[in-house]
Amino acid sequence: MKINTDLHTQHISQQFNAELNEVKNRLLAMGGLVEKQVSDAIEALIEADSELARSVREKDELINDMEMAIDEECTRILARRQPAASDLRLVIACSKAASDLERVGDEAAKVARHAIELCEQGESPRGYVETRHIGDRVRAMIKDSLTAFARFDTDLALTVAKADKSVDMEYKSAMRELVTFMMEDPRSISRVLNIMWVLRSLERVGDHARNIAEHLIYLVKGTDVRHLSYKEMKRELKD
Amino acid sequence: MKINTDLHTQHISQQFNAELNEVKNRLLAMGGLVEKQVSDAIEALIEADSELARSVREKDELINDMEMAIDEECTRILARRQPAASDLRLVIACSKAASDLERVGDEAAKVARHAIELCEQGESPRGYVETRHIGDRVRAMIKDSLTAFARFDTDLALTVAKADKSVDMEYKSAMRELVTFMMEDPRSISRVLNIMWVLRSLERVGDHARNIAEHLIYLVKGTDVRHLSYKEMKRELKD
Repeated sequence: MKINTDLHTQHISQQFNAELNEVKNRLLAMGGLVEKQVSDAIEALIEADSELARSVREKDELINDMEMAIDEECTRILARRQPAASDLRLVIACSKAASDLERVGDEAAKVARHAIELCEQGESPRGYVETRHIGDRVRAMIKDSLTAFARFDTDLALTVAKADKSVDMEYKSAMRELVTFMMEDPRSISRVLNIMWVLRSLERVGDHARNIAEHLIYLVKGTDVRHLSYKEMKRELKD
Repeated sequence: MKINTDLHTQHISQQFNAELNEVKNRLLAMGGLVEKQVSDAIEALIEADSELARSVREKDELINDMEMAIDEECTRILARRQPAASDLRLVIACSKAASDLERVGDEAAKVARHAIELCEQGESPRGYVETRHIGDRVRAMIKDSLTAFARFDTDLALTVAKADKSVDMEYKSAMRELVTFMMEDPRSISRVLNIMWVLRSLERVGDHARNIAEHLIYLVKGTDVRHLSYKEMKRELKD
């Protein structure tokens, strides 16, 4: 009897672990797609590829569905498995990270919408160098936050928070430059505004990458590091 | 023995209900404060009251703390009480709504920051009528979404989703007008940009109010209505 019960318990626990792994894998798959959306949206903008921009907008629905599926699975696990401690934190962190990825998807779709508008207006405006640069940086941040999640790597998560700080500064400086450019050439106003909205979206992508990194730190350490500065976060992780 | 066990179970369940109520009440208290932040930020902007703007920015930290406290309480309930069905949905909905309220608080702080910049630049630019109007609308949406939450009122939640649609249209039309104004008077560019960012923030506040309404619908009906259009949502609620 003892052996049977043990086997049964072991079976349940194996199944439970498989379910937790499945949620995590789904999150990483969703992350891969979202990262591609961000890079495709930037590509579409810079190469004036309206077809690519349109495909980004269409795929956004798929990302929304992925988030809802992950959320449903998380709720199902909470209801049936009643996880505790680190298992519970994994479920919560996955659900929150999925929500951030969904918002990154929204930002990518917005960038794609501006790419289409810019294609229609023809002629490339200023600010593409900054867009490319900030775009590459936030895409790398998303990638790193997901790798951190995959490996439970809090050091890598910390570098994402650090990168967010410097992206914010680059964003501000790019925006100042664009305002100056608008003033010098008022005919460019509506095109430059499109680029400003794009940069704003990319800056938001960086914020979400930082959020995902924070969810991972919560998952591994059990500490809520939201709203801490990079320095405070670093100190918290050393303790 | 039977009676004692029953009393014990009853006691546990009363305590559990008290905890659930406490989380909901905290959410509503947070909501009240956030609503005040939005209206103060708009007031500060329109009345050029930089002191009020600064107090909005300072209070944002309090709102962040409230969100973290609600989240912690939700996690504690999940771990200890292992809620199911509608109790589980209440915990999930409160945690998600708190996250939306925290972001509304961020947007209010951003509006306050622009209010300070505009005070420094002196002279009020165009767009205050639109700001006042859209500001009043999204503040009412936040209020309604919280009342819907307090009363489990899905009909009221539905009106929030409807309002979001018309706010989005008003936002777009206000933005078009501001672009025209910029082109006519390039010296106003940086002041008008401030107003544009403010309108963008207010439009986001409307989105968050809609999200909160969606969380409430999920809580009451058990259906995930995110990413549905207003029409689809209405149909879903009638079924």
